[in-house]
Amino acid sequence: MGETFVVVGGDAAGMSAASKAKRDAPEVDAVVFEKGDWVSYSACGMPYYIEGSVESLSDLVAVDPREFVEERDIDLRLRHEVTGIDPERETVTVRNERGSFDQPYDSLLIATGARATAPPVAGTDLGCVFTLRSLDEARAIREAAERSEANGDAPREPVGPDRKPPEEADPDEDVSAFLRARDPAVVGIVGGGYVGLELADALYERGLEVHLFQRSPHVLGPYADAVAEVVENHLRDRGVRLHLGTPVTGLAGDADVSAVETPDGSVPVDMAILGTGVAPNVELAAEAGVRLGGTGAIATDPYNRTNLDDVYAAGDCAEVQHLITDAPTYVPLALTANRHGRAVGRTVAGRPTKGGGVVGTAVAKVMELEVARTGLTDPDEARDAGFEPVERTITTGSRASYDPGRAPITIHVAADAPTGRLLGASMVGADRVAKRIDTVATALHAGMTLDEVERLDLSYAPPFSPVWDPVLTAAKVLNGALPE
Amino acid sequence: MGETFVVVGGDAAGMSAASKAKRDAPEVDAVVFEKGDWVSYSACGMPYYIEGSVESLSDLVAVDPREFVEERDIDLRLRHEVTGIDPERETVTVRNERGSFDQPYDSLLIATGARATAPPVAGTDLGCVFTLRSLDEARAIREAAERSEANGDAPREPVGPDRKPPEEADPDEDVSAFLRARDPAVVGIVGGGYVGLELADALYERGLEVHLFQRSPHVLGPYADAVAEVVENHLRDRGVRLHLGTPVTGLAGDADVSAVETPDGSVPVDMAILGTGVAPNVELAAEAGVRLGGTGAIATDPYNRTNLDDVYAAGDCAEVQHLITDAPTYVPLALTANRHGRAVGRTVAGRPTKGGGVVGTAVAKVMELEVARTGLTDPDEARDAGFEPVERTITTGSRASYDPGRAPITIHVAADAPTGRLLGASMVGADRVAKRIDTVATALHAGMTLDEVERLDLSYAPPFSPVWDPVLTAAKVLNGALPE
Repeated sequence: MGETFVVVGGDAAGMSAASKAKRDAPEVDAVVFEKGDWVSYSACGMPYYIEGSVESLSDLVAVDPREFVEERDIDLRLRHEVTGIDPERETVTVRNERGSFDQPYDSLLIATGARATAPPVAGTDLGCVFTLRSLDEARAIREAAERSEANGDAPREPVGPDRKPPEEADPDEDVSAFLRARDPAVVGIVGGGYVGLELADALYERGLEVHLFQRSPHVLGPYADAVAEVVENHLRDRGVRLHLGTPVTGLAGDADVSAVETPDGSVPVDMAILGTGVAPNVELAAEAGVRLGGTGAIATDPYNRTNLDDVYAAGDCAEVQHLITDAPTYVPLALTANRHGRAVGRTVAGRPTKGGGVVGTAVAKVMELEVARTGLTDPDEARDAGFEPVERTITTGSRASYDPGRAPITIHVAADAPTGRLLGASMVGADRVAKRIDTVATALHAGMTLDEVERLDLSYAPPFSPVWDPVLTAAKVLNGALPE
Repeated sequence: MGETFVVVGGDAAGMSAASKAKRDAPEVDAVVFEKGDWVSYSACGMPYYIEGSVESLSDLVAVDPREFVEERDIDLRLRHEVTGIDPERETVTVRNERGSFDQPYDSLLIATGARATAPPVAGTDLGCVFTLRSLDEARAIREAAERSEANGDAPREPVGPDRKPPEEADPDEDVSAFLRARDPAVVGIVGGGYVGLELADALYERGLEVHLFQRSPHVLGPYADAVAEVVENHLRDRGVRLHLGTPVTGLAGDADVSAVETPDGSVPVDMAILGTGVAPNVELAAEAGVRLGGTGAIATDPYNRTNLDDVYAAGDCAEVQHLITDAPTYVPLALTANRHGRAVGRTVAGRPTKGGGVVGTAVAKVMELEVARTGLTDPDEARDAGFEPVERTITTGSRASYDPGRAPITIHVAADAPTGRLLGASMVGADRVAKRIDTVATALHAGMTLDEVERLDLSYAPPFSPVWDPVLTAAKVLNGALPE
């Protein structure tokens, strides 16, 4: 008889942990409780499903639940919610549709993920207001958008006062059915982060008129302003209505949302999407006495251990070490969840394994543009971590000057003045930006100085790069700006 | 009066050095002697000019010669050949069309580049046999190919014995004019390295029937066999005739080449291109007593100094330090030439600067494929450098499983078994391979182990990558194969 490894939450971190534990130590009993119907799905793929480039929701499920059960021998229980943890007795209390029971554990992984948060304004509970945190919501949004497309709306025309108000609808009706009946033409997106921008892209492609509301002066908070401005100009050129520096003060409507309210006035919409951030699901952990960190997420050590014996946390509910600031941070992203889940599975199987820190690398597609970032790009954040940041922004070409596919690429880099240590970068462009950020991320992991980055032996061929890759040029320019 | 900085050779290393010296120390007199008509041109762009995606030869010239003279205040002398160096008197002897003169120097940079070498077989001096080492040759090849296209040949049909022999031609005629008259339909390319493959691609696109001859069993010598095989299969699928493991024993013909001869028989061709390698131009240096290294190129220290006082060498004529083997190597590539030239310019201007070593990163486009390499990928080479190489090859997808643009990517990685240190990688695929190699190159610069590479916080979004980037997956698989 092996020990029992109980996992709370069946997404990236949880399923990676259970799979790795069973693979490395088949004698372990791995039991996963997932309160919903879906496991191991790609939240990051939902905008592409809504846009239509991904055909079916089930395409977003990385691994079929049956494979976990039949091939990986994991005891996966869908629609089972863990409602309590007793760290003394080492049991969890589980509720399903037939009632409640206790499940003992030898090791426990809390992988409860995160949820979308609504801004603290009135009206976020109206109908036709969505976040993008579940596949069911993705389905509803796509159905709404498809309806619009099928009806051949003429979107992106001026929104005038005489625009026909949406029809009244029965609030008891199911959301999807309602949306099919409603035929939205205008969407208001609240928040200009990744989710907001990816949905702006997806719904624009679906033919809707898109209004994007951003409280601060620029979209993409953790990017340099010069990089964000490239994205903003591109969105405007394509016809997306940007409302920058514009806090949303409320959503108006009777049963369903009919307008987004701001200090500058009210913008009529047929649907609204909240992309204002996520919060870790920590309530279950906190009630059991698991310590939270300063970010509000679960505090862990490098082995993903919480303060409670035999209790681990990983994924979007947990903090992670930032390799530049050397402090805990909250960066809920898919790769970290997978990597940390896998490390916990290995640890439980008998080989204690560190999940590893992060440098905060991220990338997104926004229409034709690729935007990417890594490290510390905000000077205030860098100063808080004890650095003296200097920064530069360059715009150069993605390929040799004579290559017909060459496109501009804008790169912002930051470094610590006294040491020359690279601190971070953000970049944007239409040609091969996405994977260029990985070079910078790797240099950050290695703690490289600009001198070292400038001398990297990177690849060159005319269709892929100028002789000096833009990353090298950016490092060279910033290095030249360092005080002697 | 500043000191006099004399540069021999007006391509990447030479012009970078002169430009940087003048920029950092305008009082320096920078004199560049270039024996030909062209400076600062992109040899790497010539295949794209021949293919036609680059319109004009002058597009390949990075900087107009007048800019060097008028804006950068460089004393640039075209059609001036340096025929001797007197290190005692610190002068060079220069020949131009009017005669010879001596030019004193305080610092001298030898940047004489490399030349294409012909294989030691008969017939390489026949007409219609080209290398690709000058813009004039690129022009001749393109003119030949365009002629073929314009005449609407039906290329890529079986080459039978009754194929009409090419017309006789006057060997005194100019090559380009001759080619226009000749109308080639079949080209034999000798050598399956970058130049050979890029020209195979370019001439295939131009409508010629392409035969590629490679002495060893696989194209792309410094790549893993599994990676080379992907390229070979792709070329075959597109209709290129591969003759692998087939040494060329001679070129046959009267005035012009008419067949490539091999132990397996003779293949009729209308033109032949030699892509069998390059050799450093070291004769001038060697005669003056400059020490050559074991590779045959000029030996230098980390500051690009030769054994002679005040004499530097950089670019395709010089050795460079390999950062994995810690030994001098000969990797004549554009970025190194630019970087080392720039470092010499800075040194001459008063700030001694190291050019920096290389890890041997390279990339090329071969039809739809991108192929890239870095580090030590050949187990023998790794063993010679004192490592115990282990290696693995994986094939995975370039994007999320549900992304319609996903394409296979094959990655070979090698590491040192006792230490887990990453040694090198080669990769191939049709989607975003090129810049992925830079992540590996950066990890090599940092001396990372597989444990460290596996934990890199790389970027992820469905259109650009699976959650685990293929580089991470390859490192993970190889790490799992290391002895415990």
